[in-house]
Amino acid sequence: MKNSFLLLIFIVFISCNNSNKESMNTEIKEVSNTFLERVEPPNWWIDFKDSSLQLLVKETNIGSAKPTISYEGVSIQKVHQAKSKNYLFIDLQIDKNTKAGKFDIVFTFNDGTTKTHTYELKERQKSSEKYVGFNSTDAIYLITPDRFANADETNDINENLNEKIINRKDDYARHGGDIKGITNHIDYIADLGFTAVWPTPVLTNDMFRGSYHGYAMTDFYQVDPRFGTLAEYQELANELRKKDMKLIMDQVANHCGLEHWWMKDLPFNDWVNNQDYYEKNKENWNNQTVKVSNHRRTTNQDLYAAEADKSGNNEGWFVDTMPDLNQRNPFMAKYIIQNSIWWIETLGLGGIRQDTYPYPDKQFMSNWAGAIMNEYPNFSIVGEEWSYNPLLIGYWQKGAKNKDGYESNLTSTMDFAMQNNIVEAFSQHESYNSGLTKIYEGLANDFHYASPKDILIFPDNHDMSRIFTQLKGDVVNTKMALSYLLMLPRIPQIYYGTEILMNDFAKPGDHGLIRTDFPGGWKGDVVNAFTGEGLTDDQKEMQLFLKKVLNFRKNSKAIHEGKTLHFAPENGTYFLFRIKDDETIVHIINKNDKPISIDLNRFKEVKLKGKTLKNILTGENFTWNQTIQLTEKGSLILTTKL
Amino acid sequence: MKNSFLLLIFIVFISCNNSNKESMNTEIKEVSNTFLERVEPPNWWIDFKDSSLQLLVKETNIGSAKPTISYEGVSIQKVHQAKSKNYLFIDLQIDKNTKAGKFDIVFTFNDGTTKTHTYELKERQKSSEKYVGFNSTDAIYLITPDRFANADETNDINENLNEKIINRKDDYARHGGDIKGITNHIDYIADLGFTAVWPTPVLTNDMFRGSYHGYAMTDFYQVDPRFGTLAEYQELANELRKKDMKLIMDQVANHCGLEHWWMKDLPFNDWVNNQDYYEKNKENWNNQTVKVSNHRRTTNQDLYAAEADKSGNNEGWFVDTMPDLNQRNPFMAKYIIQNSIWWIETLGLGGIRQDTYPYPDKQFMSNWAGAIMNEYPNFSIVGEEWSYNPLLIGYWQKGAKNKDGYESNLTSTMDFAMQNNIVEAFSQHESYNSGLTKIYEGLANDFHYASPKDILIFPDNHDMSRIFTQLKGDVVNTKMALSYLLMLPRIPQIYYGTEILMNDFAKPGDHGLIRTDFPGGWKGDVVNAFTGEGLTDDQKEMQLFLKKVLNFRKNSKAIHEGKTLHFAPENGTYFLFRIKDDETIVHIINKNDKPISIDLNRFKEVKLKGKTLKNILTGENFTWNQTIQLTEKGSLILTTKL
Repeated sequence: MKNSFLLLIFIVFISCNNSNKESMNTEIKEVSNTFLERVEPPNWWIDFKDSSLQLLVKETNIGSAKPTISYEGVSIQKVHQAKSKNYLFIDLQIDKNTKAGKFDIVFTFNDGTTKTHTYELKERQKSSEKYVGFNSTDAIYLITPDRFANADETNDINENLNEKIINRKDDYARHGGDIKGITNHIDYIADLGFTAVWPTPVLTNDMFRGSYHGYAMTDFYQVDPRFGTLAEYQELANELRKKDMKLIMDQVANHCGLEHWWMKDLPFNDWVNNQDYYEKNKENWNNQTVKVSNHRRTTNQDLYAAEADKSGNNEGWFVDTMPDLNQRNPFMAKYIIQNSIWWIETLGLGGIRQDTYPYPDKQFMSNWAGAIMNEYPNFSIVGEEWSYNPLLIGYWQKGAKNKDGYESNLTSTMDFAMQNNIVEAFSQHESYNSGLTKIYEGLANDFHYASPKDILIFPDNHDMSRIFTQLKGDVVNTKMALSYLLMLPRIPQIYYGTEILMNDFAKPGDHGLIRTDFPGGWKGDVVNAFTGEGLTDDQKEMQLFLKKVLNFRKNSKAIHEGKTLHFAPENGTYFLFRIKDDETIVHIINKNDKPISIDLNRFKEVKLKGKTLKNILTGENFTWNQTIQLTEKGSLILTTKL
Repeated sequence: MKNSFLLLIFIVFISCNNSNKESMNTEIKEVSNTFLERVEPPNWWIDFKDSSLQLLVKETNIGSAKPTISYEGVSIQKVHQAKSKNYLFIDLQIDKNTKAGKFDIVFTFNDGTTKTHTYELKERQKSSEKYVGFNSTDAIYLITPDRFANADETNDINENLNEKIINRKDDYARHGGDIKGITNHIDYIADLGFTAVWPTPVLTNDMFRGSYHGYAMTDFYQVDPRFGTLAEYQELANELRKKDMKLIMDQVANHCGLEHWWMKDLPFNDWVNNQDYYEKNKENWNNQTVKVSNHRRTTNQDLYAAEADKSGNNEGWFVDTMPDLNQRNPFMAKYIIQNSIWWIETLGLGGIRQDTYPYPDKQFMSNWAGAIMNEYPNFSIVGEEWSYNPLLIGYWQKGAKNKDGYESNLTSTMDFAMQNNIVEAFSQHESYNSGLTKIYEGLANDFHYASPKDILIFPDNHDMSRIFTQLKGDVVNTKMALSYLLMLPRIPQIYYGTEILMNDFAKPGDHGLIRTDFPGGWKGDVVNAFTGEGLTDDQKEMQLFLKKVLNFRKNSKAIHEGKTLHFAPENGTYFLFRIKDDETIVHIINKNDKPISIDLNRFKEVKLKGKTLKNILTGENFTWNQTIQLTEKGSLILTTKL
């Protein structure tokens, strides 16, 4: 039931692009194609730097068939049989100057019968250089699609998929949000001042439960029907592009969902890690305990780590419903790389976020990122390593001078260390080594990073207690934390709903609760954050505050690429300057409840004396002379650009 | 009164070596020398790589005199007048093949009168290569000399010095311990298994109060008479050398004591930092507030640090009784470098510990360490930066790949991060990210260091609450902490008294209390830790425990230079292996109160199966097969060397 549904989707997609074929063959091919379960990637493109393409073909007994192709510039280099007789891996070479078009792959079986599959090589929509990834000019809006907006109620439940429930009262069930829901609210996101959108994964998670988050993919080439269609995903990308915004795709190279189609018939003995155990116990999986990852991520760097622990980290399953892909199998490696490139081209992506970065084979991850960056020199990829240790954050970034010689090709990492410092800065009392010193000394660690401005900074994310909760419901502290991180030499990422103080006070840290529905995303919602209806004053004020700061940031070269200068915290205040050409931005944090006067002579090296600066929040002007009076707790953003 | 006393000491020292001179001149010279207040360094040596020598000459109106020298191979390159007319700086060139010997420096004044000073160039006692610094084969015993043993009661109080009180009941007064007290107990230290001794500074601290610690030097060339004489200092070095032990000198390049002789008559306007303020207010110093350091040590690395904060760290006084030396003054720079070399040669040092490393000018510190390492390629120097941040610990070590291009010449830094991890490991309950994980992940940071085995590790030191106090009086935890750090690829340093569980429970962290008198060091002490008399069972057991582990460590190449391998903590246990050739050492930490059986199959990559190992504490043998039973909480050290 389920398989035929998937097949249908697949055929529809393939046939859409079949118009150029000679009429005589068309009919036969269309029919033939229906006999092939899968050919992946479903299409490819001409004009890549890497001229190789490896097709995974899945079809009953296809392993014994011999494929042939007759198309100028395309040649079969090698055909690989797999352990399972239902797979064939075909290495193609696509010569330079090969023309876009369709061609037949004819599979001849031992008994002389054939099956034919029409494959298409497309023209690329734009040149490689034009795939510009997210960077420090951007601000990223992170969305959990199931929880943002439900634009299409007809796709909420899909009877062909395993999880058939929608229940907004259950934080771990699906709530019905979809891709269209994001597309419908691009204006809202753009108005806030964001320039990039990172939705957590929207590919099919045909799991029995808890699949709303999207990280248990059961098909790497299919959009989850409950989130929408490929066309809708492309529409999202296109609509964002029209507004000069970037779509970031959340990808997972480490694992798949237990219900992934290939788990029923694995091509090789080592397609996933701990496959032996899986094969022996799969019929009664709920009662079994597969080796799960020891989560000892420092084994990736640790010169003293035992091999047992290294493999315990890299080869254990993430959880027992997420098989661990074995990227040391070269066919798996190629599959993952091609899958990433396929999505970049298909959606015209503006970046990839790679999940659980320190869990897969690290040499593979370097090759994977390298292959992408080789094709798209201006692209960007951020890898998730949840570590407060700057040594690890720095290790994974491209250009790091790692003593072990490891060359990562990742442009961006995640600054969990600084995130934590920010929370501490606004939670702790002020002393020589607490409070604001945490961000002052934390930011000093930038001296170690290959490229600080390409690292992601965020107040929280979909796996972490909401910043408003972390800061104990203090609106002013939350504002200071947010405005500060938006001034840093970083790429800021903010989770949907932060602008309206969404929180998880009821059960701090609970994943389901963190990913609360965005009010106004569902028909009948009493509160609507898109229109402002029903929001509290605090919520409205925060929305406006973020909107002002983000829109200011959007056009500030000083923030995007300026020099950074900061002064050690004194008397509960902390001054950060960003400077580029004639633009100087001053970000002042003041934690004092009582008015305080600051002697500006301390900052004389910034050479602002006598200059007029504008408060970007109030629009008021201020002349930089002897002192500045800070009348209330909060942050102040001044710019010399009037 | 005081000055004439110092002068006397000086003359005695100089005249000791005057025996080779021609008889005719001797008498005149001896007399002449008495007219020169100071010539520093007081002597020098031939055969250094660096052929330059700069003499600081202090004498009333010496600035207007013209010095001449007539000695083969020695020439005056340049004579520098200072701001004060009472100084002269003379640049000498000492040619290769110059012979050791004495020569006259004749100072001719404008009125034709002369003063003559006899200067000596000595032969070096041994070649540069033979000055081998402390390294991972060593274990260092850190001593606060005033608090270790009082061998000579006649030197306890010196009426010519400002602080004339001895009071063992006052933790901040002098207690009478001296150099001779250390020398008398070398056997005790050696028997414990230590191979190097680091006494905190013993040079003159002629301060009015709180000078027992030695870090407020008022003469960089004189042993504090209350600690003994230069001859006694040399005797300590010699006696240690006889036992193949190293003497480490604690030096301070950052500051001096307010009562330093030159503070009355500073040679230049920029001899110390904030000198202007000092000159204006020195008569009424107690009521003044000099600019003290902002202690913002990250400004040394921080690419965003303000110049104001950098100078605030580097140029502020350490405290208002410790003037901050200006190492950017080239005469001061040369003075400090020559002073260090003078002590290395005079004592035949086995290393230097440099105080407050991130406070002086960092380029100077690189030059300073570089000048020493250039002369003594096998020497070692450890710099003190109290930081829990591995980025900073790593930054200062020679060979670090610093992005800012800073090349430190320091062979060793201090691992405060790992010290803290060790305390946490034995203070916290076990969980995925607490307890033993702290040392497991902390040690993983070694991947970043240029040379982990040359870094100092310690359970505590003279500025920090005693380890027994930090571990809340738990003897077993303290033993585990100590045996673990002695197994690491590091240079271990242990503070005197740790072997008898000395503590500061009465007032945790109080400096005076941390530096408690070592029992048995004073006549009439009821308890004597040197003989064991009066020690509790716990104390005796700890003394014996440390003795066994240290003596084992002393002869173990596997610990000194072996490969390190460790396994992630599991079930409250943590296994560390050190391996070199046929020697494998297993260090097991077990935090379980109840017996636990460990499956040894997990460690199969260590290839110990079937081998017999000896428990170095009990002498019992153990055969490595299926399991090991850990019957009680504590550490276990096994070796394959039977």
